[in-house]
Amino acid sequence: MADKEKLTMVVFSGDFDRALGAFIIATTAASMGMDVSMFFTFWGLNVIKKNTGPIKGKGIMRKMLNIMNRGGSKRLKLSRFNMLGLGTWMMKELMKDIKHPTLDDLIKMAQEMGVKMIACTTTCSVMGLTEEAFRPEVESLAGAAYFLGEARNSKATMFI
Amino acid sequence: MADKEKLTMVVFSGDFDRALGAFIIATTAASMGMDVSMFFTFWGLNVIKKNTGPIKGKGIMRKMLNIMNRGGSKRLKLSRFNMLGLGTWMMKELMKDIKHPTLDDLIKMAQEMGVKMIACTTTCSVMGLTEEAFRPEVESLAGAAYFLGEARNSKATMFI
Amino acid sequence: MADKEKLTMVVFSGDFDRALGAFIIATTAASMGMDVSMFFTFWGLNVIKKNTGPIKGKGIMRKMLNIMNRGGSKRLKLSRFNMLGLGTWMMKELMKDIKHPTLDDLIKMAQEMGVKMIACTTTCSVMGLTEEAFRPEVESLAGAAYFLGEARNSKATMFI
Repeated sequence: MADKEKLTMVVFSGDFDRALGAFIIATTAASMGMDVSMFFTFWGLNVIKKNTGPIKGKGIMRKMLNIMNRGGSKRLKLSRFNMLGLGTWMMKELMKDIKHPTLDDLIKMAQEMGVKMIACTTTCSVMGLTEEAFRPEVESLAGAAYFLGEARNSKATMFI
Repeated sequence: MADKEKLTMVVFSGDFDRALGAFIIATTAASMGMDVSMFFTFWGLNVIKKNTGPIKGKGIMRKMLNIMNRGGSKRLKLSRFNMLGLGTWMMKELMKDIKHPTLDDLIKMAQEMGVKMIACTTTCSVMGLTEEAFRPEVESLAGAAYFLGEARNSKATMFI
Repeated sequence: MADKEKLTMVVFSGDFDRALGAFIIATTAASMGMDVSMFFTFWGLNVIKKNTGPIKGKGIMRKMLNIMNRGGSKRLKLSRFNMLGLGTWMMKELMKDIKHPTLDDLIKMAQEMGVKMIACTTTCSVMGLTEEAFRPEVESLAGAAYFLGEARNSKATMFI
């Protein structure tokens, strides 16, 4: 039997709008029968951080970083027109108005559809994050070699 | 006869510099005999909005959004060094100086060379945009499934 | 003998974090036996500018641009939390703490591993840059057609 066609994404950005784009693509691709891998790195780790509870980090600098850069799908901001949160709120209202799934809905749907969500080991080490920092939909931590193994066998690879 | 090699781009960004990059790649690829699809979404819709006339939207929030986020190739700004428009103006002068086509020229050239420009249905609904909002070079509106259909058959796919 | 699998990247961004991501991917791919091309354009040219000595440009506007937009791997800033340089410094300290190679180390390693670094002819002309502006690891200047020639034969292409 032929393998399923693969789609691979690096989610580097922690912007609300880019995260939304990534998950719309991921869930659509999964619904078309593709095998989807999302590799979260740098600010993109914010997209898959759990929304509640503290995020720990060893040492003063990592503690500070994880307070300033708290993350979680509910805290993400638009890359433009955030306007102290007003723009991001407005965008969510507009999505509700057309009954578009929220980012949180999309993350859950993605997991149910078999989309693999992986956190980048290297940026986790730099930022002092362990598996505990992430939501349950996240499968595991892995490095750039894992991502490239997926990318080289993919029909399309995107850096978001 | 073999199919032409395909190139697919998601244009997510509405920055002048990234739009320029996307259209330089698109027209070069078309001149090399490739079949190019550009899928505009989110702020990228600003790149293909018409430059003149009002852009309508239903309801107060969409009206406000389409005023603040008016778009059109002539209103785009550099992602860096915009400096209240001075930087963007300077960049356009530098392009003129080496007789580089303007962004508007490139959009027209792209269409003449057969580059397909598609606006994302979902973000159009969220932002309250219809086909009327776009310039004539835009072929139609389509969803993420259309984009993925192109991407899975492409030699390269980029998210810009 | 079969050709090596190719990986191609456009480095459009001049942010420290994105440059780091690009070079981690490039060196990992090279270590996995892939043939890697990096095509630097627009603000991405800052990543490969030499760190010392003046960067010249003809005419007042290009002189100004090359002062404001000096570039060089040691001058890049984080895309978020730069905080007048404090955030970027902190990120470098955190990398040192886990003994992660610096961006400069990664650029040197990349070249030793055979990664090709190419500067985009068009943006060099616009910005008034010649080969002299770049560090020795940069192989040459080339246009979008060169990049597309690589991309169409690549297992994955990314726009960073």
